[in-house]
Amino acid sequence: MENQYEKTIAAVATAMSDSGIGIVRISGAQAFEIADRIYRGKKEKKLSSQPSHTIHYGYVADQEELVDEVLVMLMRAPHTFTGEDTVEFNCHGGVYVVQRVLELLLKNGASAAEPGEFTKRAFLNGKIDLSQAESVGDMIAARNEYALKNSMRQMLGELGCRTKELRGRIIHEIAFIETALDDPEHISIEGYQEQLRETTKKIKKEINKLLKTWDNGRIIKEGIKTVILGKPNAGKSSFLNALTRRESAIVTDVEGTTRDVIREEINLQGITLHVMDTAGIRNTADAVEKIGVEKAKELAEEADLIIYIADASRLLNESDKEIAEICREKKVLVLLNKTDLESRINEKDIRLLFTEHISVISISAQNRTGIEEVEEEIKKIFFRGELSFNNEVYLTNARQKEALREAEEALSRVEESIYAGLAEDFYSIDLMEACDALGKITGETTGEDVIHEIFSKFCMGK
Amino acid sequence: MENQYEKTIAAVATAMSDSGIGIVRISGAQAFEIADRIYRGKKEKKLSSQPSHTIHYGYVADQEELVDEVLVMLMRAPHTFTGEDTVEFNCHGGVYVVQRVLELLLKNGASAAEPGEFTKRAFLNGKIDLSQAESVGDMIAARNEYALKNSMRQMLGELGCRTKELRGRIIHEIAFIETALDDPEHISIEGYQEQLRETTKKIKKEINKLLKTWDNGRIIKEGIKTVILGKPNAGKSSFLNALTRRESAIVTDVEGTTRDVIREEINLQGITLHVMDTAGIRNTADAVEKIGVEKAKELAEEADLIIYIADASRLLNESDKEIAEICREKKVLVLLNKTDLESRINEKDIRLLFTEHISVISISAQNRTGIEEVEEEIKKIFFRGELSFNNEVYLTNARQKEALREAEEALSRVEESIYAGLAEDFYSIDLMEACDALGKITGETTGEDVIHEIFSKFCMGK
Repeated sequence: MENQYEKTIAAVATAMSDSGIGIVRISGAQAFEIADRIYRGKKEKKLSSQPSHTIHYGYVADQEELVDEVLVMLMRAPHTFTGEDTVEFNCHGGVYVVQRVLELLLKNGASAAEPGEFTKRAFLNGKIDLSQAESVGDMIAARNEYALKNSMRQMLGELGCRTKELRGRIIHEIAFIETALDDPEHISIEGYQEQLRETTKKIKKEINKLLKTWDNGRIIKEGIKTVILGKPNAGKSSFLNALTRRESAIVTDVEGTTRDVIREEINLQGITLHVMDTAGIRNTADAVEKIGVEKAKELAEEADLIIYIADASRLLNESDKEIAEICREKKVLVLLNKTDLESRINEKDIRLLFTEHISVISISAQNRTGIEEVEEEIKKIFFRGELSFNNEVYLTNARQKEALREAEEALSRVEESIYAGLAEDFYSIDLMEACDALGKITGETTGEDVIHEIFSKFCMGK
Repeated sequence: MENQYEKTIAAVATAMSDSGIGIVRISGAQAFEIADRIYRGKKEKKLSSQPSHTIHYGYVADQEELVDEVLVMLMRAPHTFTGEDTVEFNCHGGVYVVQRVLELLLKNGASAAEPGEFTKRAFLNGKIDLSQAESVGDMIAARNEYALKNSMRQMLGELGCRTKELRGRIIHEIAFIETALDDPEHISIEGYQEQLRETTKKIKKEINKLLKTWDNGRIIKEGIKTVILGKPNAGKSSFLNALTRRESAIVTDVEGTTRDVIREEINLQGITLHVMDTAGIRNTADAVEKIGVEKAKELAEEADLIIYIADASRLLNESDKEIAEICREKKVLVLLNKTDLESRINEKDIRLLFTEHISVISISAQNRTGIEEVEEEIKKIFFRGELSFNNEVYLTNARQKEALREAEEALSRVEESIYAGLAEDFYSIDLMEACDALGKITGETTGEDVIHEIFSKFCMGK
């Protein structure tokens, strides 16, 4: 694939928040030339005449005015991430100063990079395949040990290699069929159907094995979207505080204290829980609170898990029934809260409202008791208690999963054609489709628009 | 000053937020040795045997497990920021992965750096003076062109040089007095008083010139702390949204919608405005809102500027009077809002409530009219319309200002002693004090506890 980019691109590669160091990077044929225009080193030193992979101290200047003191990292094509000449300016990590250096680069001939454009160039220049490029984003977004390990494995090209290998086997079959049809005199397809059936079955099995990792893969990567529901003053915010072990939400005795949705990320022994505390569900005249209640219902619909906080010290009422309705067809964990007070309802009442099989745990958010049982139960709900992260690559990307599913379906059609005793050229069409589907994972057969979309979701400067 | 540190320190130097690149750096005698323990390059390459100021591609690994793909920057003492051996790992910029690399370094012999410890080492190793070290923090915190320029000037050592020069002149006088008193036969102090009076006057004048830059210097550095006050539903949040040109605050018709304080930073043609939108001032029974009102009053007390939003469509009431009371002795800008509706009060009513000279501007936050006039007026209030940033170093640091003031006071005492006709050794004591005070700016005479305090305010990894 040839490099279609003539522009030299620039972007801030570190987070836009004050810190010790901020990096502004440029990549492209003119990178050194542009860097020279704003660099002021000792004794008129030119960056463009320095060797690759070296570091240079100096200043960045806008004409006569010094803007920042910097370290400049020079890396020459092709031994760079993008495969192009690359210069990185290590600036002071202030939001304003970093922005100022970027502007200076743009003023001196660089173009503002699109999100993910550096990685996109790495892909287009053949430095990495598409699944590796996607793992760059996953690596950055990783929030726990499992997610990080899985991204690293994918970055090393494991998923790419496996799909490439499967694709190679399919291409081999396509080639055989074509050759045989072209030259029936010399190549016999006697018994070939049986052989193809075997091969297809094996490839499908491997694809299936990968597809099966998806459910846990997604949870490993994205975490468990968890919504806390309950009527007002049931102790939802107290529970959130107990879970995060700090004061995340304002707690008062006043019903309707929480209006905005409060979001917290909790690391549950390597799995991320995205917990959203919501406004208590009730009929309310308060306009602001009403918006909050509606929002809570919406969030519940999209949740992987609903934690329903029931108030043991009060009888169940219409609000609880409404919540039970919302929870239908969802993974639900019920916490019977305020067990430190006199109880007026018990687990049985809850089970009557929901179903016999629902998980109910008694807690006191106030006294922070029962919280560990809650954590254990959540892991049980999703991983049946054991998340042994073996050396499998987990599928964590919806696009990749879709491609595998397409390949699987195409191979199933091949099996059907064999079963129906159709002619060999029928197999070819579906084998080709399976081949194309697998090629989407490494990017060999991915359309430009899809590639554009993938990289546009990357963060700026990557 | 000798290096009192034996530990090799490590910290994340970029912001703890997902981005393209994250940097973990280590500094100290063991930096290369520790880096070697976690680095996996091509062909068993050892970082410790590579030349200074070079970049190396590879992986960071925890024993057998690869953790991240990295670029490693090597810099050997003494040509580094800290003056010590330094290694920087450019990792993928995810919060978790960067934290993981840091942990790995700590596990392999590095110690967690305190905030500002890298810069502190640069100072203690004599690479920079204290005013330069402080400018590092200012550089990062700079939010506008003026603040950045001023930090850069200070980083280049301008303030340090000027105070050193003044200090040198004072030391010269102290030395002369001592020598003269030791050797009265050969050194005459005839007419010396007149000469010292002249010198003192000149030095005081220079110090005064610096001190005079403080007011604007502080505003340049810290921005203008601005609090928006007004009774409920006067349009405070609408005004904030008009000023930021986006929906920063929830706006409804319900009085008391804003409870929490909403903070925004606005760049006003090079000057930063820190705007805080507060709960409407009124007597309220709502417990949560009450806290909000109290908070608003507190903030107003500390503000540089109060923007009071008056509602032109309603008559003034007790709440407005209470606000006028809060505004007493403060810089106030009154905005007569809702001028798109029928007006029931005018500028005159406002002036009666406040004073004849108060600035009043008519606006419609809803229609976003009058907003530019507001911006102009704010600049006028603080800089009389013209903020010409000439080549002065502005004093922006309270500690430095205090030191200059001490020096000025000591020099005034010298003048008094001369005037009172006291003996020469009286001058010496005060000259010495002036000398010590000036030495605090560059750190030559700064106590260890003060130095500790200065660096503890730095961000982590700097």
